[in-house]
Amino acid sequence: MLYIVGLGLYNEKDITVAGLEAVKKSERVYLEAYTSILSVGKEKLEDFYGKDNIIIADREMVESDSDAILKDADKIDVSFLVVGDPYGATTHTDLIIRAREMGIPIKVIHNASILNAVGACGLQLYNFGQTISIVFFTETWRPDSFYDRIKENHQFGLHTLCLLDIKVKEQSIENMARGRLIYEPPRYMTVNQAVEQLLEIEEKRQEGICKPDSLAIGCARIGQDTQKIVAGTLEELVDVDFGGPLHSLVLIGSRMHEMEAEYVEDFACNKETFEAIVKRDYVH
Amino acid sequence: MLYIVGLGLYNEKDITVAGLEAVKKSERVYLEAYTSILSVGKEKLEDFYGKDNIIIADREMVESDSDAILKDADKIDVSFLVVGDPYGATTHTDLIIRAREMGIPIKVIHNASILNAVGACGLQLYNFGQTISIVFFTETWRPDSFYDRIKENHQFGLHTLCLLDIKVKEQSIENMARGRLIYEPPRYMTVNQAVEQLLEIEEKRQEGICKPDSLAIGCARIGQDTQKIVAGTLEELVDVDFGGPLHSLVLIGSRMHEMEAEYVEDFACNKETFEAIVKRDYVH
Repeated sequence: MLYIVGLGLYNEKDITVAGLEAVKKSERVYLEAYTSILSVGKEKLEDFYGKDNIIIADREMVESDSDAILKDADKIDVSFLVVGDPYGATTHTDLIIRAREMGIPIKVIHNASILNAVGACGLQLYNFGQTISIVFFTETWRPDSFYDRIKENHQFGLHTLCLLDIKVKEQSIENMARGRLIYEPPRYMTVNQAVEQLLEIEEKRQEGICKPDSLAIGCARIGQDTQKIVAGTLEELVDVDFGGPLHSLVLIGSRMHEMEAEYVEDFACNKETFEAIVKRDYVH
Repeated sequence: MLYIVGLGLYNEKDITVAGLEAVKKSERVYLEAYTSILSVGKEKLEDFYGKDNIIIADREMVESDSDAILKDADKIDVSFLVVGDPYGATTHTDLIIRAREMGIPIKVIHNASILNAVGACGLQLYNFGQTISIVFFTETWRPDSFYDRIKENHQFGLHTLCLLDIKVKEQSIENMARGRLIYEPPRYMTVNQAVEQLLEIEEKRQEGICKPDSLAIGCARIGQDTQKIVAGTLEELVDVDFGGPLHSLVLIGSRMHEMEAEYVEDFACNKETFEAIVKRDYVH
């Protein structure tokens, strides 16, 4: 059996009891380590699970060598651990499709993901439109297609959850060119970086979707004890220190209703500005 | 401390290890029992948690008597258990707001909810638009405002998750009029009923949003061992037997991409029809 086990968002104790049972009886345990992170590392998980050999599965292994992960999973138990919920990232769908083709029985053990835990910011989950991902701009590559998705949500007054880029095990162009397997330190996009990129795109496109005074909520380490949620204008959020990863950003839609506004206001870095803008541009 | 603990979607073992620890040390434990259900009842939870006195919290208690739930929670540990994730239903937000007003420390322990677990149907979560709820039609009350929400998602080719109505502890009009506290057996809307209602609204409004040959995916008991997922046209889904509750329905958006279609096709009740309609109206 291939168990695909969601680990939730916080630490080693966020696994479900059913998930823990699956891991304990598995002969091989993989940890997907490039689409998200917990607040604890592999060693802590190994201690808690009573396993001393969790295998880190990087993007290359999952995408190009999935047969190694699936090896003998028709005869023995194998666990593939995913931070959040197994269906949070496209890449795990590939693994499931491959396992199905090979006739391997699969059991998915669900858990929280940012897509539902983001409700902690005070907005109702059914008022969110499509979810978008914001990638790191480089000198030469500054993609803005997600702006069109935000615009679609904006048109109907829906909130937008923005997932922020993670770069793990990336090579510098120089090292890649020279074939040196030296990796850069991991990078996690901050709320500040995401907001700066959004404001840059708005500046260029001028469609009034992500203006300096548009309201948003920066979220850091959702579901963890150090969770930090701050609401404000995009301009205000540029300067808020959210601390360590992971961060995500919610753009507030104009259809926000009063109860949502009341809840979110508690997180406002400037309650007066927040209230005034809500009154002017949101809740009607 | 008030712990608001998500129970996930399946049985007593879907609670997280952290959630179980919170429940075990709580002096009072409430189970919210009107927005969703697990596959097991209160007794099974009591056995597993080692608690013999879980209090069922019905809508009236949560909405009108939340102070009883919150009593002394500034001094002792109280757990409020919610099927799925704590932020899945509006009603728990009220409880959190009230606890905040009273200065009670709150800890939310997240878990899977249908909003992320629905990824099991093979569609990517970021391609979903807003989530809607479909309520039971009565002779005199046949609301169709959710059709407008589906239409908005449809306009941008996004998928729509439809949550289906649950009626628990409802009185008949006669019993209510006579003040008799006799309750009707619980009712859970089936995929079939939801589809029939959608087709009725389409028949009336004729806007081409939920046509008999529109593609959808019926989902029953997501996250449970008896999970059943069937894809087909709305017309086809009217007759599929999905078994016991809970059911939900996904309307497929035209922006479905090839990998999604490939995954979903495995669930099609008629692969030929499915493929032909996908080619004609979806994936481009």
